[in-house]
Order: sequence, then structure tokens, then C-alpha cells
Amino acid sequence: MISVVLLGAGNVATHLYKAFSTSGDVNIKQWYNRHLKTIDHYKNDVSVTDDLSQLMAADVYILAVSDDAIETLSEHLPFENRLVVHTSGSTSLYAVDKKQKRGVFYPLQTFSKDAAVDFTKIPLCIETLQKEDLSTLKALAKAIGSKSHKVNSDQRQGLHLAAVFVNNFTNQLYRLAHEITEANGAEFDILKPLIQETAKKIETLSPYMAQTGPALRDDKKTIKRHLKQLESEHHKAVYELLTKSIQKTHGRR
Amino acid sequence: MISVVLLGAGNVATHLYKAFSTSGDVNIKQWYNRHLKTIDHYKNDVSVTDDLSQLMAADVYILAVSDDAIETLSEHLPFENRLVVHTSGSTSLYAVDKKQKRGVFYPLQTFSKDAAVDFTKIPLCIETLQKEDLSTLKALAKAIGSKSHKVNSDQRQGLHLAAVFVNNFTNQLYRLAHEITEANGAEFDILKPLIQETAKKIETLSPYMAQTGPALRDDKKTIKRHLKQLESEHHKAVYELLTKSIQKTHGRR
Repeated sequence: MISVVLLGAGNVATHLYKAFSTSGDVNIKQWYNRHLKTIDHYKNDVSVTDDLSQLMAADVYILAVSDDAIETLSEHLPFENRLVVHTSGSTSLYAVDKKQKRGVFYPLQTFSKDAAVDFTKIPLCIETLQKEDLSTLKALAKAIGSKSHKVNSDQRQGLHLAAVFVNNFTNQLYRLAHEITEANGAEFDILKPLIQETAKKIETLSPYMAQTGPALRDDKKTIKRHLKQLESEHHKAVYELLTKSIQKTHGRR
Repeated sequence: MISVVLLGAGNVATHLYKAFSTSGDVNIKQWYNRHLKTIDHYKNDVSVTDDLSQLMAADVYILAVSDDAIETLSEHLPFENRLVVHTSGSTSLYAVDKKQKRGVFYPLQTFSKDAAVDFTKIPLCIETLQKEDLSTLKALAKAIGSKSHKVNSDQRQGLHLAAVFVNNFTNQLYRLAHEITEANGAEFDILKPLIQETAKKIETLSPYMAQTGPALRDDKKTIKRHLKQLESEHHKAVYELLTKSIQKTHGRR
């Protein structure tokens, strides 16, 4: 049984709370948030507090707060030499105050407040300074069904940045496709099987091998017609840059 | 039972051949290709030919050839007033010679020569000039388990263009993410669950609603750090343009 104190009440904190509370191997000792109101309706299930001086003893303190708040919050913890981890993809392990045993417990996934998340499909990137702390975080990830990956801060920040490309930017391409189908009176939904297949292909093929289409073939006629077809200058700019990007990757230009 | 003559031997033709030959409702009368050698090893299963003057009678003639070849090939067909369709996303229905009953049978999916395809997951965009021809193409799509969508040439060309965004360009973002993880010594595979989740989200949420991340939040600090972290000017350019695109969509700029 691993005991945890959870700090923060955003998306990551809320989803972690749900995962911990349904795991048989995690004891949520306490949930802290600076605004008690946000977590007040959980008070029958867990000890809630907005007072750092009241924090209980636990194996792990999880700072699931905004990147900017990690440093200050960790400085104000009223104890020393305990395992304190943050959940940020882009923040250094050293943001946690040096009087603690420092670590990172970063779930690499997109979280929305409402959508349920399945931690068995979420990779947990973990980092610590001490080996025994690594074992604790590994066990904590395992307790909620997640696969853990030991990554250093550089690797984690690389993953966080790459995640913006495969998640936010990819979703934006879906959005632009939505605008294009609407402009042509076609249904976006017809594209959904292709969206799924494009993602599925990557499970077994490298993105290099999976590439197809007019840019790869350097099919100038189709590229020219597509650019003519696009009415928005902004759509044209994205089309041109990503066509160039594909051709660069494949040595076509 | 719908009888078809298949013309061409590329990816689309080959996958259609396989789907037709396993359907109980399609009779492949003949397979034509200008190079007989390419389809010669199917000769025990189907009548093969490289001679247009030998084409047999059939309900549908499917020109699964390159976009540029559609017009010329259809001109050289030695008969009139039969249902002749092409399989191109970006070519007008009118590319088929006017002495035929013209149509389009466009499978909106990414095809690789080797990977098996499941036509039950492939939308078929169909278009004809005559209503009775539409019924034939609908029945043909149904015979291989595909859902058909009646779309006109503008809508189809819009879908074809949008498909480049959700397939080729999305795959290129996976490729750039691969380059970024490699540059940071991290494993690309750790991103795969996020890639799947990003695609899955679109099944139930609009891309507008599904967006998250630093660009949406206008989190200047993270954006600045990401840009600093990217070593390649090319990666920076993609990051900047798609960040701008997200902010434009969401009225942040």
C-alpha cells in the first residue's frame, strides 16, 4: 500500500484522484487545494484541506499544479526530506525545493475535465534522484495500471514538445480538414475512418514508411490543383509548409 | 450478382480485386492491364487481358488507373453507353468519355501495396449522372461491405484535399515528433498511446472542442521554451504556423 497526499485540483489532479481511489494499492491520505471549495464535495471520501501546515505524513506528495506553481508550493511544504513529485512534462525536476527528495510523475496524455481516462493506456514518465524513490514511483504507476518509463528531464521535455505535434497540431489539422469539407459542402464524418487508419498505421509502421500522397510522389499537378482549390491563405500556408516538410524528409527537395 | 471488369493494376485495383473476389455478390468478368505481366499470376482465377478490343460485357467497368490515364483509357474503350467509373478523388466525373454512362467509385482511404485493407472501414464516395447507375454503385459498395456516400465532384474534391490534411500531413507531424524524440534521446513509442487517443477523441468530439495545449491557452512561456528547445529551423516554422493556426481558430489572435 502506497500512501499519497495529492496537491492541486485541476484536470491531472482530478483524474489521478479517481485512479488512486479505485486502485486497491493506493491510500489517499489527503487532498490539498488552496481553494477548499473546489474539492469540498469529496470530503466524505477523503480528508481535504487548504492548510499546508495540516499536511499528513505520506510516502509520496504529488504536486499536480500548474507549472508556475510547483516551485513556490514546494518551498512552502512544512517538512523536509520526503518524496515530493510534480506532474509536469516541461518542468525540471529541480523545480521541486531541494530540501525534499525530488521526483517527477508525468502522465503523457491529453486530459479533459469531463472525459473519463483510462490510466492503463497512459505512459507515466518518472524521474527521481534516488533509486529507492524510483521504485516507489514505479509501484505507484503500476497501482493504477500504467506502464512507467524512466526518463531524464531532457527526454521528458522532448516528449512533451513532441506531444504538442502529435496531439495539439494533429488535432488542428483535423480542424482545418473540417473547415475544408464544410467549405465544399461535404461531411467531415466521411474522413473519420481515414483518421483512425492513419493513427493505426503508426502502431506497426514508422512514420517515414507510412507516408503516401501527392507531396511524397512530388505530384506537381495535384499539389497545384489543391493549392488552387484552397480559398484561405492560411490553409494554403499550412499546405505548402507541410508539403515542403514531407519532401524534405524524403529527400525530394 | 454484379459483373465487373477491372482496369489497372496499382494499389487501388489490387485491393478492389481482392475485395471483389472474396465477395459472394461480385462476378469479376475480366482484369485488364496494359502490361499483362503485372496481373499474369492471377490468370488461373480470373480472365486477364492487355487488349482493350477483347473486353467482355459487364455491368460496371472500373478504371482504377492513375488520374492522368482516365481520360485516354476511357476514350479507347471499344463500346458505348456502358457504366464506366473511375476511382480518383480529385478527378472530375467528366474525365470519363462522354459516349459512356459516367460515374465515380472513390474509396477514401490510404492504400499500401502490402497492408491488407478492410473495406468495411472504407467509405466509398459515389457519383453518377443517372439514378439507376447510382443504385448499381451502391450495390457494388455494399457487396464488399463498404458504406457508400453520394457526393458530387466538388464535395469529393474537397474530401480528397481534406484527406491530405488528416492523412499525409498528420503522418508528417508524427514524423517530426519522431525526429524530436530522437534528438532528445527519448523513445517515440511512448507517444503512441497519445496518438491513438488524439484520433479516438475525434470520434465523439469536434476538433474545435477537442483542442487543448499551450497554443489554445496562449501560454507564452511554454511556447517560447518549446521554440527555444527546437533545434531545426524547419521544426520551428511548423511549430509557429500551427500555433498561429490554433490561435486563429479559437480567436486568440
